[in-house]
Amino acid sequence: MGAINSIGVIGGGAWGTALALTAARAGRTVCLWARDPATVSDIRARQQNPRYLPGITFDEDLNATAKLAEVADADAILLVTPAQTTRTILASLKATGLVRGPVVLCAKGIEQSSGKILSKILSEELPGIEPAVLSGPSFADDVARGLPTAVTIAANSAKTALSLCEALQSPTFRPYASIDLLGAQIGGALKNVLAIACGAVVGRKLGASAQAALTARGFAELNRLGIAMGAQGETLTGLSGLGDLVLTCSSSQSRNFSFGLRLGEGFMASELISAGGKLAEGAYSARVAVKLGRKYEVDVPICETVAQMIDEDLSIDDALTTLMARPLKAESGML
Amino acid sequence: MGAINSIGVIGGGAWGTALALTAARAGRTVCLWARDPATVSDIRARQQNPRYLPGITFDEDLNATAKLAEVADADAILLVTPAQTTRTILASLKATGLVRGPVVLCAKGIEQSSGKILSKILSEELPGIEPAVLSGPSFADDVARGLPTAVTIAANSAKTALSLCEALQSPTFRPYASIDLLGAQIGGALKNVLAIACGAVVGRKLGASAQAALTARGFAELNRLGIAMGAQGETLTGLSGLGDLVLTCSSSQSRNFSFGLRLGEGFMASELISAGGKLAEGAYSARVAVKLGRKYEVDVPICETVAQMIDEDLSIDDALTTLMARPLKAESGML
Repeated sequence: MGAINSIGVIGGGAWGTALALTAARAGRTVCLWARDPATVSDIRARQQNPRYLPGITFDEDLNATAKLAEVADADAILLVTPAQTTRTILASLKATGLVRGPVVLCAKGIEQSSGKILSKILSEELPGIEPAVLSGPSFADDVARGLPTAVTIAANSAKTALSLCEALQSPTFRPYASIDLLGAQIGGALKNVLAIACGAVVGRKLGASAQAALTARGFAELNRLGIAMGAQGETLTGLSGLGDLVLTCSSSQSRNFSFGLRLGEGFMASELISAGGKLAEGAYSARVAVKLGRKYEVDVPICETVAQMIDEDLSIDDALTTLMARPLKAESGML
Repeated sequence: MGAINSIGVIGGGAWGTALALTAARAGRTVCLWARDPATVSDIRARQQNPRYLPGITFDEDLNATAKLAEVADADAILLVTPAQTTRTILASLKATGLVRGPVVLCAKGIEQSSGKILSKILSEELPGIEPAVLSGPSFADDVARGLPTAVTIAANSAKTALSLCEALQSPTFRPYASIDLLGAQIGGALKNVLAIACGAVVGRKLGASAQAALTARGFAELNRLGIAMGAQGETLTGLSGLGDLVLTCSSSQSRNFSFGLRLGEGFMASELISAGGKLAEGAYSARVAVKLGRKYEVDVPICETVAQMIDEDLSIDDALTTLMARPLKAESGML
């Protein structure tokens, strides 16, 4: 593929808007599609997205539209809608008949109904379109404000991965190319589950030492499952794996961590879910992770405990005891 | 070796005192040696160590002494003095002629003058005495307060490692046995250097995304060097490696992170070092890490940048630009 000039961003949430700004800063021609007409008019008229990025006025002129056809024929598409809506939005994109560039999957998660990763859904819905993944430790707010961020961009071909990196890079946004398309999706799919566990530990005020121990064990779990699924070890210890896990497991800016935090404070999962508000993707992914663990014959004790917390099969105190006291198989080198 | 009943703890700082409490909670007979007579009398008379653990009254009776001979003949010794004083204190221990049990190295660092890990120093100063290492994500304050903590205890023999775990474990303190004595020291030796870099990023207000990216790269650096030195990969991703790194790189409770934080805020390294106060071990370890990188032919760009910040060969802004913008070799799987 040649140089990427035009970029269509699909999704007017915080992350979609931040990535649209990033592409504009990198010198691309950008149009952002949002479902919500108010978001479209706020971006067009005021260069703001007050609903998702309050207090930030864009330093770049951003174009926005409510018509999918106006972004579908860009040189590359960034798909930044929630993971569980991926199949639906891809079907709408297909219906435009205009898609030609690679589609970069920027949401994180696994389709709950099928247990499939997002690049698999893309290959089913838009066969012939090249899949790519953008993932790494990146809060939308940091990216929108121009704070330094590094992410992985993966595609099946090095050429596509490098073209996308080239198209999006700027002094403060540094994408690194990878051809491990599967591996780049594992961290994003599982970190949200592990972040719920870490949030619960913090919500119960068990201390930073416990939180760090659980993060390390969480990484070991992510690493085992990822390797069994075919990911490369270096991807899992890289930005999209360990990097994103560390960020998500340490900050209440993460909605999954916050969801866990409230579980740790004593709220029931059903209360939090019915109260609505922002979606905690990890609440869906936990059960999928447990199924994947069975399929690939890998122990996923933390994901299992989180699934039980969400199903309310386990009280929060019992869950935390399980999380903290579970015997690690002796660490490395033991007979 | 048989069951461990008596434990001598050498070092009356926060971590020594917390580990002495841990051993007492596990049912051991404990005596703590402290250099400072006021610490000894505070512990004996008031069951407190107000200088290092203010506000905490011990829930266990702790014995303390200023005479090394009174702790040297314990079934096991926990050595909890600063890394750079290890050789001196071991010589004093040897002079008692009483040491027989394993010596558990609980400080983290590398001897600056020689570049040697602490178990090497033990084998030189007390040949014939079995070395062990206790390391993991653990703030003294969390441990003293009985918050849940998990650490690695490594020895050359599984039997010794397991005996020490057995002797120290309690519902809130969970040691895991390892026979990777070298690997268990790598994380502790390098994490302080990496924490200085993360602190600088935070001190400069570059955001949580940048901090997480640097933590992941820091782990990659620790992992590369550790593997080259002969550590096992599982140890490096375990509690003493990744676990401790995550804790140290994320919390201003860590003195190395705090040191970096002030560098990021604009203080010069020489100002901070001459101002005294608490020692930032990573300020010594950075140069040692650079030498180790050369010796084992491993790139250690973060350690190099930290060493240059400390030597004031690089301004903080140039250092941060180097830290954040340095091209990663393309991530995994690239041609």
